[in-house]
Amino acid sequence: MADSNRQFLLAKRPEGKPDPDTFELIEADVPAAGPGEVLVRTLYLSVDPYMRGRMRDRESYAEPWAVGDPLRGGVVGEVVESNHGAFEAGDVVTGNLRWADYVAVEGHELHPVDPDLAPISTALGVLGMPGRTAYFGMLEVAEPDPGDTVVVSGGAGAVGSVAGQIARMNGCRVVGVAGSEEKVSFLTDELGFDEAINYAATDDYRTALSEAAPDGVDAYFDNVGGPITDAVFSHLNVDARVAVCGQIALYNRESVPTGPRKLGTLIETRARVEGFLVSDFEPRFRRATERLGRWVRGGDLRYRETVTDGLENAPEAFLGLFEGENVGKQLVKVAERGE
Amino acid sequence: MADSNRQFLLAKRPEGKPDPDTFELIEADVPAAGPGEVLVRTLYLSVDPYMRGRMRDRESYAEPWAVGDPLRGGVVGEVVESNHGAFEAGDVVTGNLRWADYVAVEGHELHPVDPDLAPISTALGVLGMPGRTAYFGMLEVAEPDPGDTVVVSGGAGAVGSVAGQIARMNGCRVVGVAGSEEKVSFLTDELGFDEAINYAATDDYRTALSEAAPDGVDAYFDNVGGPITDAVFSHLNVDARVAVCGQIALYNRESVPTGPRKLGTLIETRARVEGFLVSDFEPRFRRATERLGRWVRGGDLRYRETVTDGLENAPEAFLGLFEGENVGKQLVKVAERGE
Repeated sequence: MADSNRQFLLAKRPEGKPDPDTFELIEADVPAAGPGEVLVRTLYLSVDPYMRGRMRDRESYAEPWAVGDPLRGGVVGEVVESNHGAFEAGDVVTGNLRWADYVAVEGHELHPVDPDLAPISTALGVLGMPGRTAYFGMLEVAEPDPGDTVVVSGGAGAVGSVAGQIARMNGCRVVGVAGSEEKVSFLTDELGFDEAINYAATDDYRTALSEAAPDGVDAYFDNVGGPITDAVFSHLNVDARVAVCGQIALYNRESVPTGPRKLGTLIETRARVEGFLVSDFEPRFRRATERLGRWVRGGDLRYRETVTDGLENAPEAFLGLFEGENVGKQLVKVAERGE
Repeated sequence: MADSNRQFLLAKRPEGKPDPDTFELIEADVPAAGPGEVLVRTLYLSVDPYMRGRMRDRESYAEPWAVGDPLRGGVVGEVVESNHGAFEAGDVVTGNLRWADYVAVEGHELHPVDPDLAPISTALGVLGMPGRTAYFGMLEVAEPDPGDTVVVSGGAGAVGSVAGQIARMNGCRVVGVAGSEEKVSFLTDELGFDEAINYAATDDYRTALSEAAPDGVDAYFDNVGGPITDAVFSHLNVDARVAVCGQIALYNRESVPTGPRKLGTLIETRARVEGFLVSDFEPRFRRATERLGRWVRGGDLRYRETVTDGLENAPEAFLGLFEGENVGKQLVKVAERGE
């Protein structure tokens, strides 16, 4: 075990796009596990778009970080030392932990990960928060019916790629929107989406959507907001459902973003637009994760991970989310298990 | 009976705000009632904001009028001559009829109005389409619960004034938004709204709303759209419901109106925004009208009408809707019953 522990703090609040100066890397001693605590060595770290919101000095659903606070997020790690009855050295665990090589946390903050069930990194992706977000947002908010045309923006991301496949399993015609030809191929060739639009290759999203969804849109799972969402709203069918999951196109905007007013569309279509947070479904997480796991093992649900190596590169991995550099779940690999 | 029949046609499609040139008044002979038909003499004519949509050359939920087409809308009239078994001379009827002194229509296009139940003009207002729009939009879409704060824009209009009172009957704290001190007094002194905001007296809708709805907004019944709606979206509580009924602030805009993007708000609040059309609830109209009638007779539901005299002044009455000149339901009185 190393005797130095690296850890990232919020150096300053970003204005607009975060950059490397947003983050400060400090070194300290590896903490000791106190009574009831567990010392965890980080193996994988998750970076997620919602973290941008916590960097802002504004109340939101996720409490804002103070300048100087440690950054936190989903982590999969290995127990080094345990003073808690539920865990022992060598166990793989997950929790919402600091961006650090090592953390000492109370046992109740951790959940076990079964390394025999699926690769442990999936606890941060398809079998973790992003997978469950897709599961509940699609099934409970977007409500896909067989034969529906379902559009998913951010289709190649950690959440969108799962959301689209769940719609496909429900007998829908699935159209993904993503930002490169590589992603478009991933969606149509690997994940079985019926169509995918490369938004980076056109300015005319409405025409692209007319071609990809000629019968209109019955359900829309929105991860991005902005002009892509405007175009989808122009194609909503009667009784359409819109699940608002994220608005990554707007997260780095300091001034209030503006766009065409679309509420009138909802009158004609009687469409429903609804935001959701996966945390509201917490009492049902266990069954969701079990079903997602069954689908993954059965080959119905595929996933990809983009892995950046080294804790020191976590800021770069996070910043890449806003450039669309990841295909599937963006992870940071911090250490190898059992080393 | 007069031997001349005045009738309004759509003279041309308005660009932006309609004006008197939008309308053409022609004269013709009074039609005769053919087999199965009923000759109806117009007593009251309804002008409604949704008619602006029919003047546009664009598919919407209401089919567009062609240039030269007769204008149509809700009418209460008196049967002059009937070749249909369900009606006889002297009966009061309602239907979606031409803006004219007389019309000959098939009997199945008419519904009877009971003049002993309520003033016959209410069949176009509180006991007609506007009342039912308020009823279904509030109860089925905005879903007010006791103790909720409910905001109604266009609060002093035909729909809004009923919607707010239904929320009040459901034990809610009701805040109306309207465009004059007279309307504010009408809402708070006559209709029992808890608060009313005069939007014409301030540019700072957000502050006005913070004061009128200090605990935030649980349900919003939107008749207007635009900046008032933006302000309400900034005050939505968790699990808020927004019923999108109309967007009168935008109906005369030729270019696509823009405004702040608000979908992000829906994530934090898990709010639901849903458009509706009263026509979707048609199978339940009878019971809705019965309940509205009971509330009116019991004094729980009050209404006001703004009556413009003379068919020739129907365009002026219609144009006044967009200037907020009406309090309650705007009607045109065309003739006196039994004269």
